[in-house]
Amino acid sequence: MVAPLRIGLAGLGTVGGGVIQLLDVNAALVARRAGRPIIVSAVSARDRSRDRGIDLSRFRWEDDATRLAAADDVDVVVELVGGADGPALTLARATLAAHKPFVTANKAMLAHHGLLLAELAEASSTPLKFEAAVAGGIPVIKGLREGAAANALSGVYGILNGTCNYILTRMEKEGLEFSAVLADAQALGFAEADPSFDIDGVDAAHKLTILASLAFGSRPDFGAVGISGIRALRLVDIRQAASMGYRVRLVGMAEQTGDRLLQRVHPALVPMSHPLAAVEGPLNAVVAEGNFVGRLFFMGRGAGAGPTASAVVADLIDIARGEAGPAFAMPVDALATFAPADPSSQQGRYYLRLAVADRPGVLAELTAILRDCGVSIEALQQPSPGDDGTAIVTIVTHATAERAVNAAATAMAALDSSLDDPLIMPILGQEG
Amino acid sequence: MVAPLRIGLAGLGTVGGGVIQLLDVNAALVARRAGRPIIVSAVSARDRSRDRGIDLSRFRWEDDATRLAAADDVDVVVELVGGADGPALTLARATLAAHKPFVTANKAMLAHHGLLLAELAEASSTPLKFEAAVAGGIPVIKGLREGAAANALSGVYGILNGTCNYILTRMEKEGLEFSAVLADAQALGFAEADPSFDIDGVDAAHKLTILASLAFGSRPDFGAVGISGIRALRLVDIRQAASMGYRVRLVGMAEQTGDRLLQRVHPALVPMSHPLAAVEGPLNAVVAEGNFVGRLFFMGRGAGAGPTASAVVADLIDIARGEAGPAFAMPVDALATFAPADPSSQQGRYYLRLAVADRPGVLAELTAILRDCGVSIEALQQPSPGDDGTAIVTIVTHATAERAVNAAATAMAALDSSLDDPLIMPILGQEG
Repeated sequence: MVAPLRIGLAGLGTVGGGVIQLLDVNAALVARRAGRPIIVSAVSARDRSRDRGIDLSRFRWEDDATRLAAADDVDVVVELVGGADGPALTLARATLAAHKPFVTANKAMLAHHGLLLAELAEASSTPLKFEAAVAGGIPVIKGLREGAAANALSGVYGILNGTCNYILTRMEKEGLEFSAVLADAQALGFAEADPSFDIDGVDAAHKLTILASLAFGSRPDFGAVGISGIRALRLVDIRQAASMGYRVRLVGMAEQTGDRLLQRVHPALVPMSHPLAAVEGPLNAVVAEGNFVGRLFFMGRGAGAGPTASAVVADLIDIARGEAGPAFAMPVDALATFAPADPSSQQGRYYLRLAVADRPGVLAELTAILRDCGVSIEALQQPSPGDDGTAIVTIVTHATAERAVNAAATAMAALDSSLDDPLIMPILGQEG
Repeated sequence: MVAPLRIGLAGLGTVGGGVIQLLDVNAALVARRAGRPIIVSAVSARDRSRDRGIDLSRFRWEDDATRLAAADDVDVVVELVGGADGPALTLARATLAAHKPFVTANKAMLAHHGLLLAELAEASSTPLKFEAAVAGGIPVIKGLREGAAANALSGVYGILNGTCNYILTRMEKEGLEFSAVLADAQALGFAEADPSFDIDGVDAAHKLTILASLAFGSRPDFGAVGISGIRALRLVDIRQAASMGYRVRLVGMAEQTGDRLLQRVHPALVPMSHPLAAVEGPLNAVVAEGNFVGRLFFMGRGAGAGPTASAVVADLIDIARGEAGPAFAMPVDALATFAPADPSSQQGRYYLRLAVADRPGVLAELTAILRDCGVSIEALQQPSPGDDGTAIVTIVTHATAERAVNAAATAMAALDSSLDDPLIMPILGQEG
């Protein structure tokens, strides 16, 4: 058998442990598929003494992860440290400078520094791979970079954060409010102690940035992603959506419109018959719409030790096989620069939810505002007549400009009777 | 820009036309992604004079497709002729002997001669690629060969024939019998004039053979696939399934049990909540269950000019990028040989449908047979008391050995009261 591919593994958290376990359990299979054994030779993490339930004595320990890059016993560095900057970025630069392949699950770093890293990888003619950075075990990086490569894509969108989807699914199934489910999710380990990266949509935006670059052959542009998370959602929104045949999902979407690229993460109403509506709990899913292939749909586990390790080792097998080319599917020079599209120029149907004082004349005020903004009402409901002097009003618009809906919401928020910021969600069509 | 990758295209039917159109429409994008232009230089088909609605004057014409293999202006041969043997196989052998990459959508040829072709490709160190052979535009060959490569798979299964799925979907939605939908599908071009390859499950079995090889690292073994199609299905089966919360789907499945491999294509009852139940019309879908990644689900268009061309050109882009390795994911020598598993040793729940004479005592005969065979009944229904002296009886069993159900069905068929061959369908669990 040919010489093994020797891994230097930085980061020994859940995913790092999963990679070690996978390479143990599936060693023979991985060697057959890769054409050579893939073994961990050296590891690094912050705290050597912590009990991780893994026998680390087989591996050489490095206190300083950066030294993995230059180590003689390391052919490829796997970075599972996390963080957009700091040690992860230092390690990435050092590894690529040492002309060694670099594999990472670090979406934050790629969203912020992906272009720089791709340039370094190109300069040293070495692979930069990151299947695990988006949608966990689902091979969606490969699906876009290679599987759908023959297509001009009109859009790519999906459910990219399992924590949010878990929370939304439980709110719907169990009739619970957001805060109750979040607290329980934290207790169960499905949400972080500081959940803001997940529930405020930042994590999904990191992933979307990477997907959009692959889908549209464009430079990753995290700053252009419009982000709104699920913190403002209430059970009433989910119930109202359900009563009309929709589920609420946190959707990351990127669409090319002319020479502009729209990138956004936001909660949206998804028709029950749309494949994304069937994505439940912590699952992730991605839809790509190509001009020849039509709609492709990928679904699977978006996080966790096993799925993420599966994606990391898939990258390692590609590297072992010599089947790894440009990180973002083409040389950096060939990547396009898109101006960000103005989200308010989008057209579609929208859901609005308002909390207002429960007194006569309020509905007349609201409908007057909508009329003045040129927004046509498809449905207006007052699902929970308040016994505390507040009323919830939900409105579904006919197809209209997002700009008009925003203007109406701003005017509504300025009313004396308004008790809370209005919530706006786009409504996906069957076609996305 | 570097020299173009020049294609010799054999076969100018729907898919061949799609490939030409895709390489025209998406030329600039494909060149960016592939790192070089991909152009058709020479074409071959049976009848030069036929009007295909494509300007062929740009391409050099070859009367004899085999000559594409040796042609100086051809770097890669794309075979869209079809047929397991004959000209397609001759062309494949000639191309690989000429050390040129070979791309094909020909599932029949791969199911029968895939191993031989992989050996030839290996001997000449040149790519053999066939993404378009299974599930049209869905990158499921890549998904198994690369995306899920780190996993030991316990099973791979899916909806691999769009014609059958179209027929089953219409039977359910429109309440029509099989023969009526088939005739209409033929009139609309969704089914061939001779539909037997599709509706008898042979096409799905070809595709399953390829998937199973990739999933289990085994030699393609078409002869080991147990095949039953959808010809014997009646509307009553679909209605009974629906009443119990199932849809009927033609499922191709491969499962490793110890050192044996089960491969079969058969109609099955799929729970409504299973992702395969949501696959409607001509869509295809594949599920892979991995020991680290869990369940992966891929869905998209399984046939047609656009999706199939998308897969063919994805292969060409891989070749242009230099990212194409062993055809069946590992060297032929490393592929395992599995003994076929005995399907009758399977355990599960089953659906049985019988047509019997509508007279007293028949149900007692049937239940006595089930008792004698050790098959426990979960539900027995007589949905359509016959006015022509026949009665339909449907039975759902508790978990039992398939062998016992087969024995019961054989005994039932031998009854004087039996009017038709009993139909047996396995019932998929949520876990597949």
